[in-house]
Amino acid sequence: MTNNIKIIILISLLCAHELSYSQNVAQKLGYPKEAKLLIIHADDLGLSHSENRASIKSLESTPVNSGSIMVPCPWFPEVAQYFKNNSNFDIGVHLTLNSEWTSYKWGPVTSKDSVNTIVNKNGFFYDNIPAVVQNGNPEHIRLELKNQVKKALQNKIDVTHLDAHMGTAVSSKEFLKKYLEVGNQFQLPVLLVENDMLKETEIMNLMLEGNQITVDKLYTASPIDFENGMDNFYTKTINKLEPGLNTFLIHLAYDDEEMRAVTIGKRNWGSTWRQADNDFFSSEVCQKLLKENNIILVTWREIRDKIVRSKN
Amino acid sequence: MTNNIKIIILISLLCAHELSYSQNVAQKLGYPKEAKLLIIHADDLGLSHSENRASIKSLESTPVNSGSIMVPCPWFPEVAQYFKNNSNFDIGVHLTLNSEWTSYKWGPVTSKDSVNTIVNKNGFFYDNIPAVVQNGNPEHIRLELKNQVKKALQNKIDVTHLDAHMGTAVSSKEFLKKYLEVGNQFQLPVLLVENDMLKETEIMNLMLEGNQITVDKLYTASPIDFENGMDNFYTKTINKLEPGLNTFLIHLAYDDEEMRAVTIGKRNWGSTWRQADNDFFSSEVCQKLLKENNIILVTWREIRDKIVRSKN
Repeated sequence: MTNNIKIIILISLLCAHELSYSQNVAQKLGYPKEAKLLIIHADDLGLSHSENRASIKSLESTPVNSGSIMVPCPWFPEVAQYFKNNSNFDIGVHLTLNSEWTSYKWGPVTSKDSVNTIVNKNGFFYDNIPAVVQNGNPEHIRLELKNQVKKALQNKIDVTHLDAHMGTAVSSKEFLKKYLEVGNQFQLPVLLVENDMLKETEIMNLMLEGNQITVDKLYTASPIDFENGMDNFYTKTINKLEPGLNTFLIHLAYDDEEMRAVTIGKRNWGSTWRQADNDFFSSEVCQKLLKENNIILVTWREIRDKIVRSKN
Repeated sequence: MTNNIKIIILISLLCAHELSYSQNVAQKLGYPKEAKLLIIHADDLGLSHSENRASIKSLESTPVNSGSIMVPCPWFPEVAQYFKNNSNFDIGVHLTLNSEWTSYKWGPVTSKDSVNTIVNKNGFFYDNIPAVVQNGNPEHIRLELKNQVKKALQNKIDVTHLDAHMGTAVSSKEFLKKYLEVGNQFQLPVLLVENDMLKETEIMNLMLEGNQITVDKLYTASPIDFENGMDNFYTKTINKLEPGLNTFLIHLAYDDEEMRAVTIGKRNWGSTWRQADNDFFSSEVCQKLLKENNIILVTWREIRDKIVRSKN
């Protein structure tokens, strides 16, 4: 190869690289630069039968177009079987480091002795985030997160992305590194929103290494939004949605006997909360609002295949 | 002490021993020799919220007077909390070595690496008995059974007895030895019915060592009994009950959304089966039959305290 040819190839590569970096996420996915993109994402699949039933029904018949599974939870086999046979859906792993309810519990998929810093005296995950931050050895976190993804893949789920149940896996810089390492290991996008930790060199390098992107805006109902009515919250949010990659994190289940018992004693993120999410996203109002606001629904699979696993 | 006094003491001890051995279980418990004793025992507490709800309601308000908990199951914390606060009930540990349903699973309470011969590739217990018999290292069985009892005690349950879920822990001579060893270690009666294995010297010695007894007759509905109607089965069984220590093993839950999903694809021991058990034991007919047949309800706590833990 002559030097001239080498230079031409180098310039071409640099241009392709530049083009790739000058495009925003919408363009990389093949949409106009100013498109309002939205992922409507159901968290907590696998948690209970009620959660599975409501989430699957919504994925099948409403604008809800993505979701993620809590692999350590008792009802994982039910959703694993479903998504093995219905691989068209956009399904990730809801990386789980907490068991937050009181009457119904789970622990790690990894052998407890190997991750003993993230397990309480009853063999379950801790019920709160600070306990994990305080006690959790980052290497144990990495091992458990990796094993959750491995178990989902071994169960023939076409995993499209990773996110963090209760945000625990992104609640410290050390954990965030492990979260990114596991995402990169499996070439999977991980849910990230802009924050100061992402500006640190080590984190930036991990993001670059995995072609990771950030979501522009992440919306999830707070206890105040719940008290003021979920319909109000989602209606306002859809109406004010801006161009860029937006995400709703929602929780779908029925206010039934099982779910009331799972969430007993807790109103926030409880069974009536999940029923309210379910009611809004199953409504015609929701469909109408999305259409009126020219919102384009996108999936993590598109992000995985066109960005994270792209060759550019 | 003179030799005469020594001889008198020795004779007295021998007489007491002889008296103790010549009494049948009814007499040891303080009932007439020919009494028809019955334990109506609900298995599988902890399995699901539906199972917990139905079993607790029956213990509170029907002739069902005993039950046992599956400690490795996801809903263990719910029943543990209840029986910690309601220690008057007769509650044992339903020693569990299988996870037999398809959509909903659990594994050992022991760290998986320490009992890897009783865990499948997904980290759950095997779904059938032969797989445990074929793969299970008896020392792993002993460790897991011991840890289940320990966990129940640590959760402040006044454990009255042990029995074996699906009979797996008594399905081979080697397992039976471990089952007895764990019962003896905690001075707890273990459910046993007469069979050839109990005649072997090692087993007999373990039984003697722990003051263990056998149940005279154990009744539990078979698939044929279910098809012919649970009412018929229990009515006939109560009417023909003979003197001695009898036990009914029953399974109480509701035929609800959760339980239909837990038992999906299986009619035997499924949700309608458990609802049928529930219906019969909640009926006035059941109460009337027990009264008409002069049946005395007894508990494992009586057996524990008056026999297994007696000084004779």
